[in-house]
Amino acid sequence: MIGQLMAAEMAEQPDVLRRLVGRRAAIAAQVRAVRPERLDGITLVARGSSDNAAIYGRYLLELAARRPAGLAAPSLHTMYGAAVDLAGYIAVGISQSGQTPEIVTVLRRMRERGARTIAIVNAAGSPLADVADATVELGAGDERAVPATKTFTATLVALALVAGGLGEVPWEDAELDSLPTQAGALLADQASADRVAASLDGADRLVVTGRGLLLVAAVETALKIRETSAVLAEGISPADLSHGPIAAVGKGFPVLAVIGDPPEPGAQEMVDTLRRRGARVLVLSPAAGADCSLPPDVRPALLPMLAVVRGQQIAAAVARRRNLDSDAPAGLSKVTLTR
Amino acid sequence: MIGQLMAAEMAEQPDVLRRLVGRRAAIAAQVRAVRPERLDGITLVARGSSDNAAIYGRYLLELAARRPAGLAAPSLHTMYGAAVDLAGYIAVGISQSGQTPEIVTVLRRMRERGARTIAIVNAAGSPLADVADATVELGAGDERAVPATKTFTATLVALALVAGGLGEVPWEDAELDSLPTQAGALLADQASADRVAASLDGADRLVVTGRGLLLVAAVETALKIRETSAVLAEGISPADLSHGPIAAVGKGFPVLAVIGDPPEPGAQEMVDTLRRRGARVLVLSPAAGADCSLPPDVRPALLPMLAVVRGQQIAAAVARRRNLDSDAPAGLSKVTLTR
Repeated sequence: MIGQLMAAEMAEQPDVLRRLVGRRAAIAAQVRAVRPERLDGITLVARGSSDNAAIYGRYLLELAARRPAGLAAPSLHTMYGAAVDLAGYIAVGISQSGQTPEIVTVLRRMRERGARTIAIVNAAGSPLADVADATVELGAGDERAVPATKTFTATLVALALVAGGLGEVPWEDAELDSLPTQAGALLADQASADRVAASLDGADRLVVTGRGLLLVAAVETALKIRETSAVLAEGISPADLSHGPIAAVGKGFPVLAVIGDPPEPGAQEMVDTLRRRGARVLVLSPAAGADCSLPPDVRPALLPMLAVVRGQQIAAAVARRRNLDSDAPAGLSKVTLTR
Repeated sequence: MIGQLMAAEMAEQPDVLRRLVGRRAAIAAQVRAVRPERLDGITLVARGSSDNAAIYGRYLLELAARRPAGLAAPSLHTMYGAAVDLAGYIAVGISQSGQTPEIVTVLRRMRERGARTIAIVNAAGSPLADVADATVELGAGDERAVPATKTFTATLVALALVAGGLGEVPWEDAELDSLPTQAGALLADQASADRVAASLDGADRLVVTGRGLLLVAAVETALKIRETSAVLAEGISPADLSHGPIAAVGKGFPVLAVIGDPPEPGAQEMVDTLRRRGARVLVLSPAAGADCSLPPDVRPALLPMLAVVRGQQIAAAVARRRNLDSDAPAGLSKVTLTR
């Protein structure tokens, strides 16, 4: 059966996340040990799926540490040799394989220039761990399908645990503990994602929107659909969409809107605007009447993990309906060797 | 004639940029006056076209200040009320209108939390200037076409001048002085952009790639084409493209690659890979044989301003060939009121 690796790896998520959440105290202690006495800022280094995870990480780490967190521009270091002073900074390098040369190079340089470094990798012993003061292992086991699934949600949980080591987080421990079970319940219910996939039959492009903490779910879902089904899917916040790109969203254009309950400011207004333009809007939300459901009463900062699982289900279903092998999309390989 | 406002405003760019460059010393002095003694980092606050300019600004400001610069996540402040300590930070708010409520709110909160603030706006007396310790006026005159052109290139030049106030910049003063004349020469030569536009006849989607300092030209050109012609154009770095999204770029897919001379690492390899996949790649570059030309021997840090002018020409030409009014694209307005 095509796509069976991806399906199997998606199904492992509840166990993977449960093991990771169980290491909460140890990971928080690692993070406290590397935190500089005076924290000037936090920078995250990543590409591809990991860069999507970093979008979520920058929100959480800034909320918890109460100092600015941002995404690094790797080429500043690899192409322009920027002599940046990183004293007082924590640099978090994220790479499931731990092998992307560009990410390893940048994290090494940042450490040489004064940053305390944290690596988030799937397995120890990778080159990225070698340049890190602390390594958070995802322990997700081998991931063989090209589209990252279990390593992606595990990375989000790892970032939540790193945030817990930096300061106060916007959830209770027990709520994070419930997340793996909630992910399992979603995985057991495929019908809602199948309905969305069915209404994307024939679509060759798609906009996925999500705001704030849910932006990560929008960009990651877009990437998964793009990888598995070659649909030109783009993840974008409704605020950025309204600043120009909406011009290309006309009659019949499919849009998947990821929305919390209550909706983020402007999210419902964007859905209304898109519908007035004639777009076909599908909604992924815990709110009643959504086209694809999410559990109610999940904290906004934890909902992204579950929305991402729904996005994986939709991406896998779209590929299945088109008879494409989501395990090995044309032209992609598991480790991307950008330098 | 449709699109005449946009054309007229594009033509004003050499004069606008010349006046701005002439204020180099005064702007550097303003910046030095607000710089904290110990600079912890720099954060840029913007949306839409201004956010594209900020991509360029973060490179330049980090290169010059030698401390990390990143793009702020406005919703951290507007949606989650993050209690972030911004002591030691410079926050740069960019809004051509100076009126986007979200940007004004975020810059005000950052100032309340300890940041020294700089506003980059087209005209003084705007709400954004009210919350800034220093205001850099573009002085570009009224911009009435919806797609930002002269205010965009002026914003890039303003960011270059702010960088000059923060530290050493990778060009000589005389090279920045020549830029307005070089922009004028490009504007006088429309043929090269027309050829690219002609080969985009019938295209409803487009990927525009550019790496490092040229990423701004890729994302801004994509946005202009999207705004003026409703083509689903996406700007992306070749490194990010290779991490997944390339899966959706197949046979006949149009790609515009913005490349320096010598090419950025991986840029030529990406063109080769895309051509092997059957994509129709058009090249915008100073190198011989490019489909759309740029002047030779321009410093990499200044080339983006000229590449953006070429992108404007291409976007205007695509709209013209489709008989669309680039001055007032359907569904867009000049001031976007995201909160």
